[in-house]
Amino acid sequence: MFLARRLLLAGELAPAVAEHLHERPGEPDQPDGTDPGRGPDLELRVLDAAATADDLAWADSFSGVAAPPGLTTAGIRWVHTMAAGVDGMVAALTGSDVVLTRTIGSMPRAIGTHVLAHVLPGLTHVADYRAQQDRHEWRRLEPARVERRRAVVLGTGEIGAGVAEVLRAVGFAVTGLSRSGRDRPGFDRVVALADGAADLVASDLLVLALPLTESTRGLVGPVVLGSLRGAVVVNVGRGATLDPGALRAALDAGSVRRAVLDVVETEPLPAEDWRWDHPGVTLTPHVSGPTEAADIAAELLAVRADLAAGRRPPTTVDLGRGY
Amino acid sequence: MFLARRLLLAGELAPAVAEHLHERPGEPDQPDGTDPGRGPDLELRVLDAAATADDLAWADSFSGVAAPPGLTTAGIRWVHTMAAGVDGMVAALTGSDVVLTRTIGSMPRAIGTHVLAHVLPGLTHVADYRAQQDRHEWRRLEPARVERRRAVVLGTGEIGAGVAEVLRAVGFAVTGLSRSGRDRPGFDRVVALADGAADLVASDLLVLALPLTESTRGLVGPVVLGSLRGAVVVNVGRGATLDPGALRAALDAGSVRRAVLDVVETEPLPAEDWRWDHPGVTLTPHVSGPTEAADIAAELLAVRADLAAGRRPPTTVDLGRGY
Repeated sequence: MFLARRLLLAGELAPAVAEHLHERPGEPDQPDGTDPGRGPDLELRVLDAAATADDLAWADSFSGVAAPPGLTTAGIRWVHTMAAGVDGMVAALTGSDVVLTRTIGSMPRAIGTHVLAHVLPGLTHVADYRAQQDRHEWRRLEPARVERRRAVVLGTGEIGAGVAEVLRAVGFAVTGLSRSGRDRPGFDRVVALADGAADLVASDLLVLALPLTESTRGLVGPVVLGSLRGAVVVNVGRGATLDPGALRAALDAGSVRRAVLDVVETEPLPAEDWRWDHPGVTLTPHVSGPTEAADIAAELLAVRADLAAGRRPPTTVDLGRGY
Repeated sequence: MFLARRLLLAGELAPAVAEHLHERPGEPDQPDGTDPGRGPDLELRVLDAAATADDLAWADSFSGVAAPPGLTTAGIRWVHTMAAGVDGMVAALTGSDVVLTRTIGSMPRAIGTHVLAHVLPGLTHVADYRAQQDRHEWRRLEPARVERRRAVVLGTGEIGAGVAEVLRAVGFAVTGLSRSGRDRPGFDRVVALADGAADLVASDLLVLALPLTESTRGLVGPVVLGSLRGAVVVNVGRGATLDPGALRAALDAGSVRRAVLDVVETEPLPAEDWRWDHPGVTLTPHVSGPTEAADIAAELLAVRADLAAGRRPPTTVDLGRGY
């Protein structure tokens, strides 16, 4: 049982998160009458510069995107990331007994929507019809038939499952690939990665929704990409799970028809990188799953209530597994 | 009770439909042992030219896209359209006691997917990010936040409901507008058209999914379009439900930001029409809801079985209402 009372907020969303927290009345729901929501008993400090030793000594909890130096040597017992990706925080907290939680909110569906925005126009010939319109030409092309398309989503966590649900809503048959192959809601079926070769061969679309851990770093390399037969690859997970050299080879060989990269291993992508100019690559600057201040505030309060009641928050990150 | 035995098939899909019908074994499910599915008792005649008087005299049922002259004076008792739009067939059959049925199949979801393919790239800045990539620029733009967007679907039939379901899957709040305002599954809510002004004002997206009848012809004119505040208008119903002069005025005034027209009142659109070249108009050649030969064959057999058993087929068109 831990009731956070002094929360340090960092990062560009911190002021907006604080505003949402101030707007929320605390709702007493504890048997002993303590108020786990925002109330006069939760003090906030919003950083507009790097956290000082004084800030860290003051706080018992922290929320931000990146871990400030000295985080684990301070008296902070709970860290809530303002994003879904946690690898940086995991690296900073490993070995400590700080509780790490993360923000999911409306992100899985937003990421699925981003995938559709980039994939559907090609299937429905939006650019081809635009060119026909410019020529005043009325001619039907092959219908999209999305209901006959197959997608593979690599990673069956919250993000992968949300992407799968959105893809299925427009008719894709969606197979999830995970280490265990354990069933997960949202997918038509889930298969262990080791047994996924046939699904990769048959796929029109491969979506990468993996966390970055020791075992996923570079996981999508020559073997996975070489199994594809002209699929579109979309990375909405972590950049470093996709081996850029293998991607380039697969694009040039045609096993990958097109790559849509919302994440890369170094962000921003260095100016001289080949991906800026490759005709088969579409880059977006890590925008597919925006985190909302309102979502963060709501999850902060929910997690605070869970911790105060001795419950394990559902968005808790396992520091050992790294997700 | 009517068991069709001599089916005349017309139009470009006719050979493929016949093939699907030949592949289907008849499945006896009638108490008296008659076989309502395709079986030796259903003869097919596939037209490769206009129907002759002999063809019409031979047939007891007809399936195609357009009504051949003489259809109602022949012995044909059931007509199944190979498309979802039925206005042409209704005009040909009004006053007769021919049963008219239509093909829906996988079309509602396909049409919803077509709408997303044309609307999502704008919301997610696909073109802007493409331009940034060309400049090697990594900069985040305003997130799409589709979960805060409002769509109105005008027409709450099978197509409108299917579009609504797909829009809701990516987060749109969807209001259906219909004559009655009667609740329909698939929508967040349904409102009578007469009470829909506030929804139109607040909408980011207006999808037209109306049948063409006497009361819908030109229904989307200055009043409806003038209520909008910069919405995108997508017509996937019937071209003549949208008044082109009012559309042009609304585009020029900015109440309509962009129009995506899959249907127009005269198809193909005449070469001199202003819509080919207007910067706010996207044209596609009536492709959003492709009809599949397999869908048509399956619905033909289902309807045949219903008629043989004296049931009203669910896709029956009310010739009086026109849909």
